[in-house]
Amino acid sequence: MLVEIWSDVVCPWCFIGKRRFESALKEFAHRDEVEVIYRSFELDPSAPEVGVESISAALGRKYGGTPEQVTEMMGTVSALAAAEGLRFDYENVTHTNTIDAHRLLHLALDVGGLDLQAKLKEALLSAYFEAGRSMGDREVLTDVAVSAGLDPARVAEVLDSEEYADGVGGDLRQAFEFGIQGVPFYVFDRQLAVSGAQAPEAFAQALDQAYSAETPTLGVLADGTVCGPDGCALEDQSA
Amino acid sequence: MLVEIWSDVVCPWCFIGKRRFESALKEFAHRDEVEVIYRSFELDPSAPEVGVESISAALGRKYGGTPEQVTEMMGTVSALAAAEGLRFDYENVTHTNTIDAHRLLHLALDVGGLDLQAKLKEALLSAYFEAGRSMGDREVLTDVAVSAGLDPARVAEVLDSEEYADGVGGDLRQAFEFGIQGVPFYVFDRQLAVSGAQAPEAFAQALDQAYSAETPTLGVLADGTVCGPDGCALEDQSA
Repeated sequence: MLVEIWSDVVCPWCFIGKRRFESALKEFAHRDEVEVIYRSFELDPSAPEVGVESISAALGRKYGGTPEQVTEMMGTVSALAAAEGLRFDYENVTHTNTIDAHRLLHLALDVGGLDLQAKLKEALLSAYFEAGRSMGDREVLTDVAVSAGLDPARVAEVLDSEEYADGVGGDLRQAFEFGIQGVPFYVFDRQLAVSGAQAPEAFAQALDQAYSAETPTLGVLADGTVCGPDGCALEDQSA
Repeated sequence: MLVEIWSDVVCPWCFIGKRRFESALKEFAHRDEVEVIYRSFELDPSAPEVGVESISAALGRKYGGTPEQVTEMMGTVSALAAAEGLRFDYENVTHTNTIDAHRLLHLALDVGGLDLQAKLKEALLSAYFEAGRSMGDREVLTDVAVSAGLDPARVAEVLDSEEYADGVGGDLRQAFEFGIQGVPFYVFDRQLAVSGAQAPEAFAQALDQAYSAETPTLGVLADGTVCGPDGCALEDQSA
């Protein structure tokens, strides 16, 4: 089963949801057949590369609350994160662009597969939410990516170029086509979806349901030359 | 776009089809948005690990032809392979099980991603068809996998265990559910399929059609707490 998770590295519900999904997956009988791919979603593509506004200031501006109300709001989210074993400490972090973080997640998928991408995703979320490090800072991104196991030279190459911008764009386009309005958003075998940081029980139900779902009927465009249990076709039917 | 290719490493049409698909992909305008994953398909799960029968003998037994007819048959396939730049030379190779080769392809996907899996897939097909090496032989598999970039210790661990048998089983189960009778079999975004070693034009058409296809409607099971362009939901709706 293929589970695609659209999320952003600066999205608190994405980190909380990650733990809840992981709890459900750990208990899922067919977990060894599940592949998880992280898809890119930029919450604010217009955010600056170098942060100038703290998250609390950005929240205050967005929701129009007083600093005290913002602090309370962040405390509520942090308490829910703590219930999942996460130590949120992002008061002083700044509001930045995440395109480079997403390009590195695509690099990780390409060169290190599902394992390396998952490792980098976790490391980026933790760097941002638990260590208050900026997702727009090249040094931070390099440090986190290299610690996760990526090659420093390839990381530099990607950060110096537009490499993987197409991959990020493809994820965003797919999100748009699925009508995804917010993240985290979980897609199971391109059939079923769960929106948001659900309780583990909801994810467990989705895994069960997707696993036993009717396989969609494929539109077979063309029938050519194949090998099957009874041998190989001898004539090239594509000619 | 996700293209999943079911194939076996001992299937001549899979290698020929690989070149034809690659020709089409190379010309596809959105090729940078295409991810290719190889899925496992065992043509003969009951084949012995250590080959005792040559391919030509197995073909003769299967199709009931004389040795001369079998040689001619193999010559025809080799000529089509040559048209794709492949030098088939598999007369003396033996008919073996391919489960271990498939388990290594799953390892490659896990630890090295799409790139490493693609590299190993190509190397296994070439080892079998162009160098006449056995796919059931541990030394051959180790040599090919390590040359492709896999860690020797991990390769040994996987070959010493049943690791990734679940992953191979999951691919076979999915093939069964899609009604796949023979390989190669190409699935585009779990919507469209192309069966067999088609001409590049057929793959080009499938890529175009899949790219512009209507995105399937997802069944949204549950709506929880998300962050969106306008900010993050403040209440945990999963509670």
